[in-house]
Amino acid sequence: MDAQEFRANGQAVIELIAQYLETIEDRPVTADTKPGDVRHQLPAHPPTAPESFESVLADVSNIIIPGLTHWQHPNFFAFFPGNSSYPSILADLLTAGLGVQGMSWLSSPACTEVETLMLDWMQELLGLPESFRSTTASGGGVIQGSASEATLSSILAARWRVTEGQVNKDGDTAKLIAYCTSQSHSSIEKGLRIAGIGTQNIRIIEHDTLFAMVADALEAQILADQAAGLIPFWVCSTHGTTSSGAFDPTSAIGAITQRHKIWLHVDAAMHGIAALAEEHRWVNDGLELADSYCTNPHKWMGVNFDCDLFWTQDRASLLGALSILPEYLRSAAAETGAAIDYRDWQIPLGRRFRSLKLWFAIRCDGTAVFQEIIRRHIQITQELADLVAQDHRFEIMAPHPLNLLCIRLRGASPQDADARTDALIEAANATRSVFFTRTVLEGRSVLRFSIGGRTTHAQHAMSAWGLLRSLA
Amino acid sequence: MDAQEFRANGQAVIELIAQYLETIEDRPVTADTKPGDVRHQLPAHPPTAPESFESVLADVSNIIIPGLTHWQHPNFFAFFPGNSSYPSILADLLTAGLGVQGMSWLSSPACTEVETLMLDWMQELLGLPESFRSTTASGGGVIQGSASEATLSSILAARWRVTEGQVNKDGDTAKLIAYCTSQSHSSIEKGLRIAGIGTQNIRIIEHDTLFAMVADALEAQILADQAAGLIPFWVCSTHGTTSSGAFDPTSAIGAITQRHKIWLHVDAAMHGIAALAEEHRWVNDGLELADSYCTNPHKWMGVNFDCDLFWTQDRASLLGALSILPEYLRSAAAETGAAIDYRDWQIPLGRRFRSLKLWFAIRCDGTAVFQEIIRRHIQITQELADLVAQDHRFEIMAPHPLNLLCIRLRGASPQDADARTDALIEAANATRSVFFTRTVLEGRSVLRFSIGGRTTHAQHAMSAWGLLRSLA
Repeated sequence: MDAQEFRANGQAVIELIAQYLETIEDRPVTADTKPGDVRHQLPAHPPTAPESFESVLADVSNIIIPGLTHWQHPNFFAFFPGNSSYPSILADLLTAGLGVQGMSWLSSPACTEVETLMLDWMQELLGLPESFRSTTASGGGVIQGSASEATLSSILAARWRVTEGQVNKDGDTAKLIAYCTSQSHSSIEKGLRIAGIGTQNIRIIEHDTLFAMVADALEAQILADQAAGLIPFWVCSTHGTTSSGAFDPTSAIGAITQRHKIWLHVDAAMHGIAALAEEHRWVNDGLELADSYCTNPHKWMGVNFDCDLFWTQDRASLLGALSILPEYLRSAAAETGAAIDYRDWQIPLGRRFRSLKLWFAIRCDGTAVFQEIIRRHIQITQELADLVAQDHRFEIMAPHPLNLLCIRLRGASPQDADARTDALIEAANATRSVFFTRTVLEGRSVLRFSIGGRTTHAQHAMSAWGLLRSLA
Repeated sequence: MDAQEFRANGQAVIELIAQYLETIEDRPVTADTKPGDVRHQLPAHPPTAPESFESVLADVSNIIIPGLTHWQHPNFFAFFPGNSSYPSILADLLTAGLGVQGMSWLSSPACTEVETLMLDWMQELLGLPESFRSTTASGGGVIQGSASEATLSSILAARWRVTEGQVNKDGDTAKLIAYCTSQSHSSIEKGLRIAGIGTQNIRIIEHDTLFAMVADALEAQILADQAAGLIPFWVCSTHGTTSSGAFDPTSAIGAITQRHKIWLHVDAAMHGIAALAEEHRWVNDGLELADSYCTNPHKWMGVNFDCDLFWTQDRASLLGALSILPEYLRSAAAETGAAIDYRDWQIPLGRRFRSLKLWFAIRCDGTAVFQEIIRRHIQITQELADLVAQDHRFEIMAPHPLNLLCIRLRGASPQDADARTDALIEAANATRSVFFTRTVLEGRSVLRFSIGGRTTHAQHAMSAWGLLRSLA
């Protein structure tokens, strides 16, 4: 393919995407497919000669798209819906076309500097603590691929700080203890395990009936561990759990972590973006006490995956944990401290020019668009909760201040209610007109009604609720 | 931005990219910029109202592009040049537009199945061992973001296997010993440190005058460690080191790792793609003995970053190390073993539909295009080496069977030669008409002449060589 063909083919892909998004509601949300169906429609072996672009796009339309789960469908109520706003799609196209590497300042100065600026812009837009800004003596932010990687980076920084860097040499994590609740995201345990903190050294702290960490229980456990000669080093406080949207009490937790000099990470992957709307800025409560923080524009802000924002107030520990400097990566600019080399802020070396999609989204759509979406989803969720509360067959299982509603069918016994709830989720998903995911809260089956799609309006949620009622 | 505006703006971005790539040679390779220059041309604070797409694109043209290092410039001879082929750019656009998550089969079946098929296609195209295929009882492959992540995944799988899974519980890595050479990539030490293997537990094995690991020295060290009660668990053999393109002797190393039941990872990030051309398939020597292997289509194959291919012959250990299964991620398809959930094959949870760019590149351009590029670069490198050998002021510092030539100026003393070589690199880069990176081999300064750009032809390399001669 040459530049001329790229122009024509590019227009065809743009048109395909525009039509896909304009007509997505006409499709089922999920694919009618079983494992192997897609693969078996494609050649088992690679082609021996080039094929036309038309034939490739035809396969996209006829085989790939029907085999997808449509994360941008307005009736996608599973996980947290995916959002690819038009400006962010075009920015990702530009990222691919420019094809630069942002591993160091030298490897593409603008890639680094736009990223730093975007993190500072987002600090302002979200109303985060000033101490996260890159312009401060010890703070700063970076775009990570996902909250999983941000969490792991945070663990590694904490591990480095508590051992005064010794862990880089001896890898000794035997006495290090980490704290979270059973409601924390799976990436917490995964990240800890990767970092050599086995499950025996992970303390699952009690949560209250609202699924939020009990701060007193945290401190009691920390004291017990210290008394046993162990070293508490990392606490995760979640702002919006995946299962139920619960908020751990970061202000209370932060007072404890400060007292005991423990790294506090706040995982706001799900709900931190709510702070774009001033009236929901309570989601930031306690953040001034956090050593690190992450949230995902690739969820509620409509910036297409991957775009996780990770800030720390202690960049020296992050760099201590993650920097490596072979000769072929040295540069004068970085050694004087004038420039940021983002490879030292993340797990991998290589990195794409991801800040372009945040920059395009903020400039082209503007924050009012995001605020409207956030407010709309929260209002729908509250209206829906009112309706659920009026239907005696259902019960609401958790607080729902934002855009996640956890519901369940009642039954003759808890087991009966579980079975009926599981059957309801299965029956609803089997229609392929909606997609819900299941979770378990206090051992009981729950349907998560997650309202986060850019094109999801009240009628979509109400229609899905109608379906649930008719199937119940 | 709505769908209609997206169509028009999309065409503008396609045109911008086409023009950028058509005229890239008219630009300097690197930016005339110092830290802060780009940022200071942009507003310090986010806009309060939406801006026109035209104004954003104007900033891209006037501020961003002049602030980039142009990785696709034909005179980019640093690192390994970046390549974004036209089909892969369009595939990445589609990835952004579809916006699906491939964390599990259920979360988008086609995303998973195309990826598995592409890994199997690539196994064929590269002539890799059959045991890496997904269709075997214990093997399979996955797309990772970078070789750094592949390396880390490999370390974690090895750590799990040698401890029979115990490391997930106790995190105890105290006795685990890893082996590489001083020529291994920086991501090896970084990955090991992340996994709790401190530098004290990393053995730097002697290399020979060709910068390849001395297999006998490896075995001697393994025996010494075993005698000391330690547990050798992971060896990295590099197929094309970053500094000099050296190949460790994987056949000999593999015989040792098999004998001692140690995980062997082969890092072919730099040069594994050479195997697309049959006459260079020697780069695969010994791979049948590897437990895991990675190489980068985002280098020599022109598929835009990020696209690292990672295979293992022991997927059970990989899954043992990396799988986590909370309720909200369960699916019937995966639990029956019929489907692959790629979240368990990688560090993060979320993942983009990255296989599209490999699929587009293979189908639209075809393997003959990649083979031509590989053969062209290797031929240029050999011609260049002949010319360097004829100039008594220079010396060649390492074997150069592929596309990397390491050269250095002679001098009155080694220190004088170092100073002259460093000055030469600086003077050449200061012209901004070329870009080289420096490395150190056996303590001596070396200029890396890395010929890997899709649009790099003989005249570009010869002109750069002329510049070096005139500056020498």
